[in-house]
Amino acid sequence: MRLILDVMGGDKAPLEILKGVLFALPECDAKFTLVGDPGEMSRTAKEIGLNLEQFEVIGASSVITMEDDPIQSFKHKKDSSMMVGLQRLADGQGDAFVSAGNTGALFTGATFMVKRMPGIKRAAIGTVISAEKPFLLLDAGANISVTPKYLEQFALMGSAYMKTMYQITEPAVGLLNNGAEDCKGTALQIETNTLLQACTAIRYVGNVEGNEAMFGACDVLVADGFTGNIFLKTAEGSFRFLMKTLKCEYRKNPINKFSALLFRKSLEGMKRAFDPSEYGGSPILGISKPVVKAHGSSDAKAIKNAILQAIKYAESGVAEEIARAAQGGER
Amino acid sequence: MRLILDVMGGDKAPLEILKGVLFALPECDAKFTLVGDPGEMSRTAKEIGLNLEQFEVIGASSVITMEDDPIQSFKHKKDSSMMVGLQRLADGQGDAFVSAGNTGALFTGATFMVKRMPGIKRAAIGTVISAEKPFLLLDAGANISVTPKYLEQFALMGSAYMKTMYQITEPAVGLLNNGAEDCKGTALQIETNTLLQACTAIRYVGNVEGNEAMFGACDVLVADGFTGNIFLKTAEGSFRFLMKTLKCEYRKNPINKFSALLFRKSLEGMKRAFDPSEYGGSPILGISKPVVKAHGSSDAKAIKNAILQAIKYAESGVAEEIARAAQGGER
Repeated sequence: MRLILDVMGGDKAPLEILKGVLFALPECDAKFTLVGDPGEMSRTAKEIGLNLEQFEVIGASSVITMEDDPIQSFKHKKDSSMMVGLQRLADGQGDAFVSAGNTGALFTGATFMVKRMPGIKRAAIGTVISAEKPFLLLDAGANISVTPKYLEQFALMGSAYMKTMYQITEPAVGLLNNGAEDCKGTALQIETNTLLQACTAIRYVGNVEGNEAMFGACDVLVADGFTGNIFLKTAEGSFRFLMKTLKCEYRKNPINKFSALLFRKSLEGMKRAFDPSEYGGSPILGISKPVVKAHGSSDAKAIKNAILQAIKYAESGVAEEIARAAQGGER
Repeated sequence: MRLILDVMGGDKAPLEILKGVLFALPECDAKFTLVGDPGEMSRTAKEIGLNLEQFEVIGASSVITMEDDPIQSFKHKKDSSMMVGLQRLADGQGDAFVSAGNTGALFTGATFMVKRMPGIKRAAIGTVISAEKPFLLLDAGANISVTPKYLEQFALMGSAYMKTMYQITEPAVGLLNNGAEDCKGTALQIETNTLLQACTAIRYVGNVEGNEAMFGACDVLVADGFTGNIFLKTAEGSFRFLMKTLKCEYRKNPINKFSALLFRKSLEGMKRAFDPSEYGGSPILGISKPVVKAHGSSDAKAIKNAILQAIKYAESGVAEEIARAAQGGER
């Protein structure tokens, strides 16, 4: 098992990325290929006491920034740490790839260089959301324009992912919609709902509203990338806003401060439970090899979790499960 | 000022509706028209010590349930408390109407009986969301299929509402989207963004993401009814889930319980701050006279707030402000 890592992608690269490697080392026995600017990598590694000689180190002369256009980056930054890493994955010189860089560029590069699995019409970005029970939102923002058939494939891929990675025998799949009835939604949701009802390869539980998803309605929440992104950002914003309000209230007076002190452990637990970095990164499902997007603001812990997730993704047979589902296998 | 009230609509009707009237009476000097089943109304009024003789009481022989189809209800339940009330509003026998009944039926009845304001192509349901600052989400779920022109009118109506009802001189209007850049969203958002940028009658601040909306990005958040509904339900679900988690944590052990006791006042304040019933009901904007939808599960306090809001809505000149904006007035 060889993991390829984009050391230059992300807001806190390369420091937190290499620290993430340091944290991941004792918890896995994978080999690492580190891709990035050789000078910066060796300076940073020295700083944190990481011996680079134990890894395969591949130089890359540029970096794709968060502001770069995805298509342009893919076309004209072939020498970037992200594209060099993806090319090695495509060439079979590694088994999984992790990057905290530009999401659009990673999605485009993965699609055109590593390529989609046979039969898969669109790859999609999955994100595990921690609520009453963890569930996979798919697509979280990559495909703005989709068809019911694409969404059906997202359902199959999401189901395969949760089955394999979370050991859920028959994951409940729901369609994000504005009501439970079959008539709800735009033409896209109405047609997709009909298609999913007829799909024997998954356990479809029907339309799911935004609030129900938080209370365990499904293990896989299927959406087009636009609606999925609205859902994801709104949930993140709501959690963050409530935690901020709580923090402000706790600071208001000495009694509240004392109360917070007593409640400290629970608060830390809650913060951890809602922290996306605890869940690793976002898998790009439908690509022929595992590609995992870590959050742009990832710290070392988030990178470590994304690395461990990518290794598990590569070793657990998610790809085979998806391929089987895409070929029309029964559940 | 005469307020017409659907006494039979809502999960807790007629009891909580009439209690709401009892609570509203000392806080306003409006006259009331109560519409509903005469027997049930008089029994319930007696129970809570409300003297019905001080009101105009109009009998209605049926009720529209939450399960009824909106169009069918409008066509075939003309004798329902909701439709009888709307007809009186349309006939000029009252100045505003409040109902906690079936949202779709209320929207349909308001559109076809009370009618839209001249020049307004679609009415929309607004909901005030309490976050870092309160903002109006419009449309919250009525119009699944819209055009950029409709959304432009939602922006004008929402701006007029927040200006008049919340005394905000130049409300910041944002478009709910999956990113800030002009290229973001589906064709609908891209075209609407261009249209709103050219609209001199409002202060348009651009595309707003779901998380930013929670932190004061705008006073009016414009969306099609599908996306608006996903936003609303996701935010509600997230808040409710976090408050539930907090409650569970507080019950875990005696120290946590003691901590909760110390923090009690703040917790109650937070709960109140996020309670939609504190903000009254949802105005249906674009209808020629004020129609306010109270939440289906409204208790007496929520009904009282919806009544006071409808009175303010009728008296404050929102309708004139919207009419002026619809005629193409500058801000």
